[in-house]
Amino acid sequence: MDDAPFSTLDEFRAVLAGAPGPDSAARAGAQARNGQLTKPPGALGRLEDLAIWYAGWRGDARPSLTAPQVIVFAGNHGVTAQGVSAFPAEVTAQMVANFKAGGAAVNQLAAAFGASMDVVALALDRPTADFTRGPAMSAAEVVVALVTGWAAVDAAADLLVVGEMGIGNTTSAAALAHALFGGAPEDWTGRGTGVDDAGLALKARVVGEGLAANPGAALEPLEALRCLGGRELAAMAGAIARARAERIPVILDGFICTAAAAVLERAMPGALDHAVAGHVSAEAAHGRLLERLGKAPLLSLGMRLGEGSGAALAIGVLKGAVACHSGMASFAEAGVSDG
Amino acid sequence: MDDAPFSTLDEFRAVLAGAPGPDSAARAGAQARNGQLTKPPGALGRLEDLAIWYAGWRGDARPSLTAPQVIVFAGNHGVTAQGVSAFPAEVTAQMVANFKAGGAAVNQLAAAFGASMDVVALALDRPTADFTRGPAMSAAEVVVALVTGWAAVDAAADLLVVGEMGIGNTTSAAALAHALFGGAPEDWTGRGTGVDDAGLALKARVVGEGLAANPGAALEPLEALRCLGGRELAAMAGAIARARAERIPVILDGFICTAAAAVLERAMPGALDHAVAGHVSAEAAHGRLLERLGKAPLLSLGMRLGEGSGAALAIGVLKGAVACHSGMASFAEAGVSDG
Repeated sequence: MDDAPFSTLDEFRAVLAGAPGPDSAARAGAQARNGQLTKPPGALGRLEDLAIWYAGWRGDARPSLTAPQVIVFAGNHGVTAQGVSAFPAEVTAQMVANFKAGGAAVNQLAAAFGASMDVVALALDRPTADFTRGPAMSAAEVVVALVTGWAAVDAAADLLVVGEMGIGNTTSAAALAHALFGGAPEDWTGRGTGVDDAGLALKARVVGEGLAANPGAALEPLEALRCLGGRELAAMAGAIARARAERIPVILDGFICTAAAAVLERAMPGALDHAVAGHVSAEAAHGRLLERLGKAPLLSLGMRLGEGSGAALAIGVLKGAVACHSGMASFAEAGVSDG
Repeated sequence: MDDAPFSTLDEFRAVLAGAPGPDSAARAGAQARNGQLTKPPGALGRLEDLAIWYAGWRGDARPSLTAPQVIVFAGNHGVTAQGVSAFPAEVTAQMVANFKAGGAAVNQLAAAFGASMDVVALALDRPTADFTRGPAMSAAEVVVALVTGWAAVDAAADLLVVGEMGIGNTTSAAALAHALFGGAPEDWTGRGTGVDDAGLALKARVVGEGLAANPGAALEPLEALRCLGGRELAAMAGAIARARAERIPVILDGFICTAAAAVLERAMPGALDHAVAGHVSAEAAHGRLLERLGKAPLLSLGMRLGEGSGAALAIGVLKGAVACHSGMASFAEAGVSDG
């Protein structure tokens, strides 16, 4: 476990402020290469933009993508006391065992696309506090979760996917999005893993109560993460920040992952420039959140599982984009007339 | 090369009429298995439908997907005499050499997703006739192309992608779509590999002239294929029909592939039940064609290259779907509470 360069939220803010950008020479080289490949200009659509973006962050005009890492973070939420989930809280630990045994959806997708897979359970026996009564976490707790996420990233990876498991965490993500972007609680609440109409109304009420109980959350993004987030959300934010420091591109997953990521973007505009949206989930608030972040999803397949599953599936798209960019012949190499 | 069970268009029609359906027991078994996997019901969205569809066609409730085949068919078009393409006709043969050397986009995508890749050039030195003056092909020529496509399919494959290369073939596909579905020529014409406004107007005029010169094309789908299609379009249709006979699922590519496939569906409703749409291309007519066929695309990434590239990229999505379906643990196996 690598040392993190922060041990307070202020120091974490400084890390975000000092984060590196892409390599402009590699990006320009990739752009030039793209124009010489045996295809009409633009004919690979978003694959071309993806490959150039990836090349810039990897600092290589003709990059490879061979070592993606998927990390699933798990946490438990005190707000489940409000009855916001269709599943009991015990399922978090049961699913962690399933991830470790290789039986979940994300395991199959990671394997299908050659990704390594790590599972990090964060203090499952100590749920966060119920945020309708006050902050979910202390400053020390949220920093530990950020550091745990930071340290879980393999610096030798060339792509990062972060996912989550945590009964109750769509409610936490909804409260976080509400604090970060305003609007009404209903704008950010959905059915999660499957609550009914009454459950949906309850979730919206709980989200509103969360913000009322934590007025500081609307004022500052990292304070919102502390008050309304959960350990697995903070860990995802820490991992995404670490990826930026290592210039490892990131594929964002669904609503909960994107809410955690949005904390970084709100704290430091541009903090997600190294991230693309892997998919848009069936949870309606996810599309809304991606719009606020200016991220167009790669996939739209009605998935709403979390675990990093949508992002893991999008590894295939990015692998295809990089394979075309780096493997195709140029017009000159192939002896093809370029129009 | 396997013998084809037809040597006339009438016999090909009979093959379509006698084609097998999916295995309903395998499909029901897959549906039952899907309900037991460690995820909330429906949480994998379209991946669940895809896996069940695939299971039905493969006759296996817990299938694997390990032997996809990509075939690129190439042909030349007399209608290029009308100046409808931004590229010279020589590019068809040059790109065939590029496919064979492994330098094209589809080569990289096939390799990325573990697909075998075959390239079949159809009489490139004998372009089809200019369809603005009469039928593009004789009955014998279109049957030979159908047989060539039929014979190119590997009966041991467990997934088929067909793609094409043929300077001028968006014009041929537009004329075919116009004959099959009516509307105005402009509804089915687009910029292809990159013609300008004047080129676009010219293409629409040529499409109209094609139908005027071949009035029988509007009356019968296989006659439309003969009069307005090309050898590579007919070969794709033949390959898709063969896949159906072998119960090999198919991923459709872009506008030209879909126009060729549409011939089968118009000749025999249901003939494309073993096929999904891999993507919707930037060629606007493609989306229109998919709507007419009732096929929702898996990907929408602004691709417009042909070659089978969009469908080859979608192999990743289908592989992910099948991997989840066949590899995930059940609630009982994993000891997870199912809500």
